[in-house]
Amino acid sequence: MSPFTGSTPRTSTWHHIRLDLAPTGVATVTLARPEKLNALTFGAYADLRDLLAELSRERSVRALVLAGEGRGFCSGGDVDEIIGATLSMDTAQLLDFNRMTGQVVRAVRECPFPVIAAVHGVAAGAGAVLALAADFRVADPSARFAFLFTRVGLSGGDMGAAYLLPRVVGLGHATRLLMLGEPVRAPEAERIGLISRLTDEGSADEAAQALAHHLAEGPALAYAQTKALLTAELDMPLAAAVELDAATQALLMTGEDYTEFHAAFTEKRPPKWQGR
Amino acid sequence: MSPFTGSTPRTSTWHHIRLDLAPTGVATVTLARPEKLNALTFGAYADLRDLLAELSRERSVRALVLAGEGRGFCSGGDVDEIIGATLSMDTAQLLDFNRMTGQVVRAVRECPFPVIAAVHGVAAGAGAVLALAADFRVADPSARFAFLFTRVGLSGGDMGAAYLLPRVVGLGHATRLLMLGEPVRAPEAERIGLISRLTDEGSADEAAQALAHHLAEGPALAYAQTKALLTAELDMPLAAAVELDAATQALLMTGEDYTEFHAAFTEKRPPKWQGR
Amino acid sequence: MSPFTGSTPRTSTWHHIRLDLAPTGVATVTLARPEKLNALTFGAYADLRDLLAELSRERSVRALVLAGEGRGFCSGGDVDEIIGATLSMDTAQLLDFNRMTGQVVRAVRECPFPVIAAVHGVAAGAGAVLALAADFRVADPSARFAFLFTRVGLSGGDMGAAYLLPRVVGLGHATRLLMLGEPVRAPEAERIGLISRLTDEGSADEAAQALAHHLAEGPALAYAQTKALLTAELDMPLAAAVELDAATQALLMTGEDYTEFHAAFTEKRPPKWQGR
Repeated sequence: MSPFTGSTPRTSTWHHIRLDLAPTGVATVTLARPEKLNALTFGAYADLRDLLAELSRERSVRALVLAGEGRGFCSGGDVDEIIGATLSMDTAQLLDFNRMTGQVVRAVRECPFPVIAAVHGVAAGAGAVLALAADFRVADPSARFAFLFTRVGLSGGDMGAAYLLPRVVGLGHATRLLMLGEPVRAPEAERIGLISRLTDEGSADEAAQALAHHLAEGPALAYAQTKALLTAELDMPLAAAVELDAATQALLMTGEDYTEFHAAFTEKRPPKWQGR
Repeated sequence: MSPFTGSTPRTSTWHHIRLDLAPTGVATVTLARPEKLNALTFGAYADLRDLLAELSRERSVRALVLAGEGRGFCSGGDVDEIIGATLSMDTAQLLDFNRMTGQVVRAVRECPFPVIAAVHGVAAGAGAVLALAADFRVADPSARFAFLFTRVGLSGGDMGAAYLLPRVVGLGHATRLLMLGEPVRAPEAERIGLISRLTDEGSADEAAQALAHHLAEGPALAYAQTKALLTAELDMPLAAAVELDAATQALLMTGEDYTEFHAAFTEKRPPKWQGR
Repeated sequence: MSPFTGSTPRTSTWHHIRLDLAPTGVATVTLARPEKLNALTFGAYADLRDLLAELSRERSVRALVLAGEGRGFCSGGDVDEIIGATLSMDTAQLLDFNRMTGQVVRAVRECPFPVIAAVHGVAAGAGAVLALAADFRVADPSARFAFLFTRVGLSGGDMGAAYLLPRVVGLGHATRLLMLGEPVRAPEAERIGLISRLTDEGSADEAAQALAHHLAEGPALAYAQTKALLTAELDMPLAAAVELDAATQALLMTGEDYTEFHAAFTEKRPPKWQGR
């Protein structure tokens, strides 16, 4: 728990997503609108944005699983409730909506804990970008990614996809996927580096939970800084990155987990990580 | 067609390349010097630079295929007509020539329509970089890429290759290919992400035309913006990229193609894209 | 040999690493502490930093092989001599140490000759990053890379790893490897682009030497500039990269190796490269 608590109360109920907080520090966010393949609504985007901000300030969470209930992960923005609604929005509203979706992606990339997308079935449109923004994509053979923005007449660069996808799979594959919006099934997704871990059919949720628990039991501050540096150093020159690494490492060398590692190593026992 | 027409007339005849403009909006640029494996001359570079600028201003083109006539795609700069000629150039001329070749690559990356390289046989030197700069590399099993600049005593970083190749295939492969100039055959090129679509033997031209027609019939403005964002966001930090995406998407949500998508979806019919 | 010689004498003896300088211009740096799997000490880091600076100024070296004696390449920083020692360091000392390790990586990336890591067995921690920073990773099937910084409670972004690894294998694989510290064996390392050349069992050293000699006999200035541009253009926008390429190529077109290529081509004989 962060010592820097402001006046904002915890949100007691999230209406558009389901949140489970395990005592281990694993948060599970479930997109739970299975009758619509977990299509996102304005409320779901806003709740994801606000939840990630809240969990980031509290620091009680050490790993987060993002999962979808039912037949698939997430079919993206709802055609009726979002596309239909945007058609009558004014300029400022359109910009607000598109900024909000981007804020969700930034929150996933910038929150101080690893985010694991557990993907089965469809991850389409905004659903594909949410998975792409996660640190890990744990997926089963039914997973199917589709960045289908151009298929609704929009830019393939949505929610940071034109930034993230070339950095994950290279510019050639990214161009093909974003321009054409064609689906990428699990074998290709694994081959091009879009899937972090391919599981047996039906095991993505379980494997994602296992990975989250492994991370939550480990040196959480080390993981948080690894994530922060991976995110930041995509945008930094080599010399600055090396300097950031040096300062970060010098800092962590004053931390309890580093001391504990050495003690455990010397005493030939497993370390007891505290995450600080 | 862009409404912003200046006084410059259309070039009626290109002497160094062959241009076919289909009424569908597909432009086909053919390197047509088959007796020399389509080796590039000063005139060919200049015509590619000027043609891309002209097509970019006019906005009548929705997709461009770059192909090579005869046994291969392009063997690169002509040894006699270019390498020989540069040996007696002065400093300013040398810089002018090398800037021109770079301008061709920038034009391929920055023109407002997708560029599809149809590759069979050799794509060497400047020919390999032209293919690399394209949005899609549609290639058949005879395709062979070779960035052979060091083999003539020059830097492997030519025409943006040291910028583009690591972003397409990763720094490790890019270093090997640019430093050694060794050929990459189709299976390896596909494996490392250098080929976008591998076709049957002899079918690269046909498949490239089919892809170009598919793109030309689609939401051209959405494709153009996807390309522009992929190009721009390689050079932008995440926060700026997400903001650019938001502004772009808000703009396209006021466009005709987005409205048409929703109407077509509601009426359960395919959309009629207008490209605006 | 560079004409710009200062007053600093050559170091006559390196105490912490072994250096062999062949008359061909191939330098071989061997981590030679096989009883400790070549674990790095403070002295070894300092010697690598200073040796690379010395060789870079002299310009007598045209290619460098970095190898490990005994059962593996390098097991990383020594647990007793480094981790133990850092526990009693003050803030300034911790920063100094971590800057030094980063300076070694910058020196590998910025020295004016290709660096070839010859990897067999373990390349762990700092050893994995040294190999990662090299231009080529020539490895045999026993090679095993492990970025195990989080396993000692530290950030996976150490010595530029969070900058380099995503640019070599993509952000997805890099996140998995740096966050979890799990080992990557040769087949996976080759598949994701972490190995430049996979050799037969036991042949990594020999193959690395052969590659170094091939490079040393070639157009060394062209190779040096290729490396410099690959390193620099990771941090540059496209337009600037293309301009740097143009200036570099115009310069090399005034060089002896370029003239020699054309003469040799015309006379149908192999070129005699001088490296200038």
